[in-house]
Amino acid sequence: MRPIRWAAFAAVSFALFACSLTADDGIWLLNKFPKQAVEKKYGVEVTDDLLNRLQLASVRVLASGSIVSPSGLLFTNHHVASECVQQLSSKEHDYMRDGFQSASEADEKRCPGLDAEVLLSIDDVTPQIAGNIAAKVPASEVNATRKANIARVEKECMGRTGNRCQVVTLYSGGQYHLYRYKRYDDVRLVFAPEFAAAAFGGDIDNFTYPRYCLDITFLRLYENGKPAQTPDYLRWSKEGVKEGDLVFVPGNPASTGRLDTLAQLEFFRDTSYPLIHARLGSLIETLKTYSAENAENKRVAADNLSSQQNSYKAYTGFLSGLRDVQLMSAKAAEEKRLREAVNADPSMRESFGPAWDLIASAYKSFRSDYAPYWLIESQATRGSELFRIARHVVRLAEERKKPNSARLKDYRDSELQGLEATLFAAVPVSPSMETAVIANYLEFLRTTLGANDPTVRAVLAGKSPKEAARGYVSTSRLANVAERKRLAASVNAVRNSKDGMIRLALLIDSRARALRKAYDDRLEAVLTENVSKIAQARFRIRGEADYPDATFTLRISYGKVAGYKDERGRDIPYATDFAGLFNRAKGVEPFQLPARWLGARSSLNLKTPFDFVTTADTHGGNSGSPTVNTKGEIVGILFDGNIESLPNRFIYTDETSRSVHVSAQGIAEALQKVYRANRLLKELGIEQ
Amino acid sequence: MRPIRWAAFAAVSFALFACSLTADDGIWLLNKFPKQAVEKKYGVEVTDDLLNRLQLASVRVLASGSIVSPSGLLFTNHHVASECVQQLSSKEHDYMRDGFQSASEADEKRCPGLDAEVLLSIDDVTPQIAGNIAAKVPASEVNATRKANIARVEKECMGRTGNRCQVVTLYSGGQYHLYRYKRYDDVRLVFAPEFAAAAFGGDIDNFTYPRYCLDITFLRLYENGKPAQTPDYLRWSKEGVKEGDLVFVPGNPASTGRLDTLAQLEFFRDTSYPLIHARLGSLIETLKTYSAENAENKRVAADNLSSQQNSYKAYTGFLSGLRDVQLMSAKAAEEKRLREAVNADPSMRESFGPAWDLIASAYKSFRSDYAPYWLIESQATRGSELFRIARHVVRLAEERKKPNSARLKDYRDSELQGLEATLFAAVPVSPSMETAVIANYLEFLRTTLGANDPTVRAVLAGKSPKEAARGYVSTSRLANVAERKRLAASVNAVRNSKDGMIRLALLIDSRARALRKAYDDRLEAVLTENVSKIAQARFRIRGEADYPDATFTLRISYGKVAGYKDERGRDIPYATDFAGLFNRAKGVEPFQLPARWLGARSSLNLKTPFDFVTTADTHGGNSGSPTVNTKGEIVGILFDGNIESLPNRFIYTDETSRSVHVSAQGIAEALQKVYRANRLLKELGIEQ
Repeated sequence: MRPIRWAAFAAVSFALFACSLTADDGIWLLNKFPKQAVEKKYGVEVTDDLLNRLQLASVRVLASGSIVSPSGLLFTNHHVASECVQQLSSKEHDYMRDGFQSASEADEKRCPGLDAEVLLSIDDVTPQIAGNIAAKVPASEVNATRKANIARVEKECMGRTGNRCQVVTLYSGGQYHLYRYKRYDDVRLVFAPEFAAAAFGGDIDNFTYPRYCLDITFLRLYENGKPAQTPDYLRWSKEGVKEGDLVFVPGNPASTGRLDTLAQLEFFRDTSYPLIHARLGSLIETLKTYSAENAENKRVAADNLSSQQNSYKAYTGFLSGLRDVQLMSAKAAEEKRLREAVNADPSMRESFGPAWDLIASAYKSFRSDYAPYWLIESQATRGSELFRIARHVVRLAEERKKPNSARLKDYRDSELQGLEATLFAAVPVSPSMETAVIANYLEFLRTTLGANDPTVRAVLAGKSPKEAARGYVSTSRLANVAERKRLAASVNAVRNSKDGMIRLALLIDSRARALRKAYDDRLEAVLTENVSKIAQARFRIRGEADYPDATFTLRISYGKVAGYKDERGRDIPYATDFAGLFNRAKGVEPFQLPARWLGARSSLNLKTPFDFVTTADTHGGNSGSPTVNTKGEIVGILFDGNIESLPNRFIYTDETSRSVHVSAQGIAEALQKVYRANRLLKELGIEQ
Repeated sequence: MRPIRWAAFAAVSFALFACSLTADDGIWLLNKFPKQAVEKKYGVEVTDDLLNRLQLASVRVLASGSIVSPSGLLFTNHHVASECVQQLSSKEHDYMRDGFQSASEADEKRCPGLDAEVLLSIDDVTPQIAGNIAAKVPASEVNATRKANIARVEKECMGRTGNRCQVVTLYSGGQYHLYRYKRYDDVRLVFAPEFAAAAFGGDIDNFTYPRYCLDITFLRLYENGKPAQTPDYLRWSKEGVKEGDLVFVPGNPASTGRLDTLAQLEFFRDTSYPLIHARLGSLIETLKTYSAENAENKRVAADNLSSQQNSYKAYTGFLSGLRDVQLMSAKAAEEKRLREAVNADPSMRESFGPAWDLIASAYKSFRSDYAPYWLIESQATRGSELFRIARHVVRLAEERKKPNSARLKDYRDSELQGLEATLFAAVPVSPSMETAVIANYLEFLRTTLGANDPTVRAVLAGKSPKEAARGYVSTSRLANVAERKRLAASVNAVRNSKDGMIRLALLIDSRARALRKAYDDRLEAVLTENVSKIAQARFRIRGEADYPDATFTLRISYGKVAGYKDERGRDIPYATDFAGLFNRAKGVEPFQLPARWLGARSSLNLKTPFDFVTTADTHGGNSGSPTVNTKGEIVGILFDGNIESLPNRFIYTDETSRSVHVSAQGIAEALQKVYRANRLLKELGIEQ
C-alpha cells in the first residue's frame, strides 16, 4: 500500500471512556455501526439498506474509492492514483503535469499492476483461528499456530468461492473476521487533473486547512476487456454540502494506535518515529537534489518525492502529538484507570494484569534491534522501484517452494495474485533516480548502523555509497518484466544471477529474515498476545461501545460538516471557495494554477464551495473515501486531515481536528467550466 | 545594528498613488506628519505637543525603545536587548534561560558597549550638502564630494553642541536633514523575562499571528553613574487597547524599498536575496549543530542562532513577495505609469527619463561582483564576534590616520565614539562557537567563489575550512580588550601582529576595500544620483504626500487596532489572551512555558489580552517602538509583523498585513502575577 496523504481519527476526548458517544468518533465495522447513537444525536435513521449500498459501492484501491456509475466508473483521489498517472507518463506525455482526459472508452489507459477490490461478505471465524491455540506456550508457538490457521482458512475460502479471501485480526486478536472480495485486475485511467490543481499548495499546504485542492481522479473497472457492470453505485448529489450536514465516510483506514499502551507510545516517540523521520528527511533531500538537476528528473521523481514528503509531514504530526505533554498525560491517566479497574477484580488481575509490563519489556528488549530491523527488513526498499522488485523476486522464488502456512505473510496464496500483478507489471524505471535513492539508502545505513556493521560492509564492499549504488543499478536488468519472471521462477536462477539489484537483495536477505524472525518472535508475538488481553479487559469493562483499531479494511465513519476555532483562536470557515483559490494562486510553485484554470476564471462562479471539513473520524488509508449524505448520495471526497488531526492517531479530539474533503459542487464546477469534461459529466448524471 | 525581528510597512495599495491617504500607510517624518489625513479619517487632532512628547521619549537603542519613567527607565523588546542579556550571562547565571530581575538599583547590570540616543533636533541642511555638487561629473566624483560635505557638516555640529550629529539622506538624496542626538553610553539591565516567554513559539511562530510573546525588556539610562533624569517620559495607560483604537508607533524603521525600481527588485529577487538566504541557512545549520552538542553550547549560541533565524525568515518573506507575480506586476505597472508621466513632459523627460535604465545597467554591470562583495566586504563577519572585532581593529588603525572626509563611513568622527564603545566593551567570546562560525564562513566562501578564487586560496592556505578556522581562532587574543586597544592604536602593531583573527582580517582587507570601492563607484554612486532623480520626479507629480524610504531614524506610523481575514479566509481576532497562551503551551520547546508561569496559571485572569495587531506601518528597526494611544499613553509595544506584512517592504497593503504588539494589559498582568515585579510596577505607576 502506498503512503497515504493524510490521517484523521475518532472521538474519545481526553478522558477515558468519556463522551465517546456524544462526539463523532469511530471507525466502525459495517456490522457494528452505532445506529442508535447517530439517531439520538442527529435524528437520522441509518438503515441496513444504506450500509449495504455503501459496502457494495466502496472500493479498496491502494487506499479507498467508490463506484459512481453503472459502468464501473471509480472515483478516488489524485494522490491515490498518482502512481498510475506517473507510470503512464513519459517525456513526451506528462500527465502528472498536464492532467489526463480520455475522449472515449478507447482512450482509457490501463494502470500497470493496479487492482481494486469490492467487499462482498464478512464472516466471524474466531473459533477456527483461536480455538486450538489457547493452551500453547511459548508466545512464539502460539503465533506460529495462529498464522497457520489464518492461512488455512483463507485458502479454503478462496478454493470454495474463487474470490480473494482475507482473515482480518480485530481488537488485536479479540476477534477474527473473514473478508471476501471481488477483485478487479484491470483498472484504467479516465480523468486526472493537473498535479498543480490536485495538490495545489504542495507540501506547504499538505495537512493544513483552509485548503484548495482538486484532489480527484476517475478510473474505470474493467472485466474481460469491457467496462464492468456495477449496478451498486453511488449517485451524485445535486445539492452538495452545507454547514451542519451529517455525512458518512466509508473507507479503509490503515493504521491507528488508539489502544496502544504507554510503553508503545514511548517507543514510537523515542525510538521508531525519530528514525523514520530522519530516514524520510534524508530521502527527501536526495530526491529534491535529483529533481533540481533538470526538468526530466523533476518529472520522473514527482510522485516519489510527493509521497515521501507526505509521510514525513504525517510523522511530524504524529511526533508532535507524542511529544505533547497533555496528550501523553491523558494517555497515562487513561492507562492508569484501566489498570486499576483490572487490578480491582481478582480474576481480571490474574489474566490481564501483567500484560502492560510484558509489552513494555518486549519493547525494551527489542530496542537495540529496531534500527537494523527497520532499515534492513521492514523499509529497506523505500523509494526504490528496482529494490522492491529485487526483494520480491528473491523471496518469491524461495517462498513458493514452502507450504502455504510456513510462508512469509506477503507470499501466502491469498496474496500471491495481487503481488504478481504488481511485480510483473511493466512500469517505467529511471536508473538515475534509482541510483540516487539506493546511494542515499546505503549512506543512511552506514551513518545509522556504523561503518563496521557486517551488512554495511557487505553492501558497500569498500566502495562509497554512490559507487556501490551505481554498480548495483547499472548491472540490473530487472526493468525487463520477462527477466523478473524468469528469475522468480527458480531459486537457482536467483542464486546464480549476476544482476546487481538481485545481488544487493541477496546480500541482505538472510540478515533481513533473521531480523524479521526476531521481530515476530520477540516483539510481535508478545504484542499479539498481550494487546489482545488488554483489548479483552477493555471489552469486559466497556462492552460493545468500542471499535477495533484500523486494519486497512472497510469501516464507516460519520460526522458533521463544521468549521472550527483553531488552536490560535482563528475562526476557520467550514468551506473554501474558488475565489479563495485564485486569491492564493501567487503564480509561484506550489501556488501556481495551470493555464486552463487561469483562462476559465471569468466563467467560474467564484462562490462555489471548493474544499470543506467535517468531524468524521478518518485516517491514512481513507484517502479517496466518498463523502455521502443521508440519502446515500456523493457530496464530496475525503482527501486529507488538518495538522491538528494527526495526533488523533492516538487519542481523538474534535475541537480543532478535521477531515478535509473536496466538495461535489466544486468538482462539478471544475469539470464543467475548466475541463469541459462532458463525457464524464453525463456519466455522473450532472449533465444530461 | 543587530538583525531586527520583524518588519512591517506603509499603505499604497497595488495601484500607483491610489488611496494612500485612506489607508494607514507611512513612516512619517516628525516634521511632516499627515495631521489632516488622520483627523479626516479618525476625527482625532494630532497636536504638535503630542508629536514633541513622542520625539523626546523615543530612544534609538539597537532598534527602538521609549522612556517610561522620570528616572530613565527604558522600555524595549527582549529580542532587541537579548544581546546584552546573553553577554551578561555565564554558565552559572543564565539570564537568557531564567530571566533577570533587579531587586534594587544596585542590582542593575551595565550592558557591555551598549549606547542609546534621544533625538533633540532636526535641521534641513540640503543646501550645505547638495549646493556645490550640481555641476560635477562623473557620478563617482559627485559621490565623493557629497560624502565630504556630510562629514564636514556633522563634525561642525558636533564641535558646536557636543552632541552626536548625523546627516540623514532623505528621498534618496532629495533632501538632507541634520539630526542631533543626546547620547547615553551607560545603559543597564533592569528586567528581562525568560527567553521561553519572550520568544514563545520560537522560530516556528516568528513572523506569524496569532501570537503569544512577552517580548519585553526594561533597561535604564544612566548619567554620571546615576539614573538619568528624564522628565519627558510616556505614562502607562490604565485602559489598554481595544478593537478599533487609533494608535501611534514612533520608532526607527531601518530599511524599506518602496521606491526601488523594477531593476532593483529583480536584482534582489534573482541575485542578492538568494545568496543571503543561502548564507543564512548554512550558518543556521552550523549553529544548530553546535547547539545540539551540549547544554553550554546551546546557552552560548542562543542569541546568535535566534538572530540568524530571524533574518532568514524575514528574507523568506521578502523573497516570497518578490516572487509573487501579482506584486511584481503591480510594481511594473506603477513604474510604467510613472515613466509615462515623466516622458509626457519634455523637461522631466530630459532630466529624469534615463534614470531607470541607468540603474538597471549599473546593477547588470555589478552582478558578477555581488557575491564576492557581499561575502568578503559587506557581510564577511556575520555571526562572529571575533571577526567583527578583528576587522574593526584593522580598519580603525588605518582609517584614523586619514582626514575625516576621506574615511570609510563607519570611521568618521561622528561614528567613532559609538564604535569604540562597542569595540572596547568586554563581552564574552566562545572560541568553540567562533571556530564553528568561521569554519562555516570559509566553507561557504569556497563553495560560492570556488576553490581557485584568490581570497579562498589565501585564507585556506591548503587547509580544510575547519583546520583553518581552528588556526585563526586558537591563535587570537582579541577576547582581551587591552589587546584590541593596543592593536587599534597602531598600524604597525596590526601589520606585525601574529594574532590569527587579525591575520584573517588582513588577508581579505585589500580585496574587501577594492570591492567596496567598486560598489561605491559603480553601483552606489549611480543609484544615489538616479534614485534621487526618480524621487524628484515622483515629488513633482505627487507633491508632499510622499514619505521617504526608511533611514533608521525617527519616524511616526499610525494605525488601527484591527483583526483581519487572512489569505485563507480565516478570521483572525485582533488580540490573543492568556488562555490561548496556555492552550498553545505543549510542554515541548519552543512551546514550553517556564515553571514560574505554570505556577501562576491559577492566579491569572486568562481573558487578559496578550498580543494584538494593528494596521500601523512598521518595519525592521521599529522593534521596541512604544504603541501609544491618542492621549500619548503606552498601550503596548511593537515587536513583530505577521508573515503577510513582509512583502510590504516593497509595496503596502493592509488587507492581511499587520504589525504585532504586546499589550500593556498583558504586560501588567504578567509583571503582577507571574513576576511579582513590585519595584517595576510602582515605577511604571501601575501599582501604588
